[in-house]
Amino acid sequence: MCKLKEGERLDDLQTRGYEIIQHPGKFCFGMDAVLLASFAKVKKGERALDIGTGTGIIPILMTVKTDGEDFTGLEIQEESADMARRSVKHNHLEDKITIKTGDIKEAADYFKAASFDVITTNPPYMIGQHGITNINSAKTIARHEVLCTLDDILRESARLLKFHGRFYMVHRPFRLVEIFTKMVAYGIEPKRMRLVHPYVDKEPNMVLIEGSNKGKSRIQIEPPLIVYEKDGSYTRDLLLNYGMGRAGEE
Amino acid sequence: MCKLKEGERLDDLQTRGYEIIQHPGKFCFGMDAVLLASFAKVKKGERALDIGTGTGIIPILMTVKTDGEDFTGLEIQEESADMARRSVKHNHLEDKITIKTGDIKEAADYFKAASFDVITTNPPYMIGQHGITNINSAKTIARHEVLCTLDDILRESARLLKFHGRFYMVHRPFRLVEIFTKMVAYGIEPKRMRLVHPYVDKEPNMVLIEGSNKGKSRIQIEPPLIVYEKDGSYTRDLLLNYGMGRAGEE
Repeated sequence: MCKLKEGERLDDLQTRGYEIIQHPGKFCFGMDAVLLASFAKVKKGERALDIGTGTGIIPILMTVKTDGEDFTGLEIQEESADMARRSVKHNHLEDKITIKTGDIKEAADYFKAASFDVITTNPPYMIGQHGITNINSAKTIARHEVLCTLDDILRESARLLKFHGRFYMVHRPFRLVEIFTKMVAYGIEPKRMRLVHPYVDKEPNMVLIEGSNKGKSRIQIEPPLIVYEKDGSYTRDLLLNYGMGRAGEE
Repeated sequence: MCKLKEGERLDDLQTRGYEIIQHPGKFCFGMDAVLLASFAKVKKGERALDIGTGTGIIPILMTVKTDGEDFTGLEIQEESADMARRSVKHNHLEDKITIKTGDIKEAADYFKAASFDVITTNPPYMIGQHGITNINSAKTIARHEVLCTLDDILRESARLLKFHGRFYMVHRPFRLVEIFTKMVAYGIEPKRMRLVHPYVDKEPNMVLIEGSNKGKSRIQIEPPLIVYEKDGSYTRDLLLNYGMGRAGEE
């Protein structure tokens, strides 16, 4: 049993008995993180970095959903990184996951260029500081581009990824044009995309994107990922992606 | 009754008794043209140009599907332009549609800058001359970027459209990244997009895009347009868009 700090709780990840430490008053992982962990692929022997890992949800899930065994989570907020480190230890994943407190803008101080096969990121979605009341809150930093912008992530990812290394991101569809043009500008070519729609007749509220460092221009757009059936139950597709199995498996 | 030339046939457009002259051995319109005519919006009093109009299917449909009354179709192949002109006359649409034989690359010779509110285009989808056996065939010219590239269309559209004029295009999804980056480069900001999937669990085979000349970066992605139900019948959504009514109307 791990020690929880005040206000924290331990949430069941419903796979292998894994649990994660979260603080409901600060930031809890959402469907976006889980879908990204299903969308991303890490092969055995590959080295993966999760930028802005928060409480470590993405690397923890990816130890189950992929064949990867070498994950690093980078997190700027020490309080989140500390929760992530305790969750890693609690689940006995110290051999597979390292949590590093640090700023992606200073990544050159921590990591060598072209040293990762895969980068994942569930970055802040909102541009700048629009509508922010408390710029220092953990939620604000996770949701708004206060400490880290899309440009920061792409510039550093292009440097940290190997040639043809893979970049996986979940983001908001309204920024898709900006995302594509910036990815191309930094040399991370968008190669695969999946839009997530709450219902089949509704606009998407998430987009999953795979890029290739120095890849050629040609994108594969996947079938839409629909979350709910008309009756409000989860679709089979969502359950396959959301569940702790691997996407595409029954 | 209009005079048909050898090899031509007259196809019923199932609205207002309209018919179109086509040559089955050359090029016949497809679902892409019909869906583009539903996706595009032209208000009363606006002036619209269809680039690469072929047999004039898009302006003819748009006289029904929109409130526009001033359409110009530009077509480089005289044989297609001649069919388009005869179809316009056959349907008594001479007051609303003008067909011009000409090359978009020479648009400056025919049209004033910033003189159109709307541009529509169903351009050649295939890059360059890959896999072409007969470079001069009407089908090749309609399908491959032999006489006109995406760059030609966007460069001239940015010049021909008024400030905040609207650009509507149907294209292949695998070129989406190139389409977005080139639109942005020419100053036509992608503002709205709809992917067309044959079935809900299949990849899209068409993308409908609306751009705004000198618009701001923010895109609205619409629900997927699904063509077929599981049993192979058309979806209600497809019938609403494909039919001769206006999209969204019953």
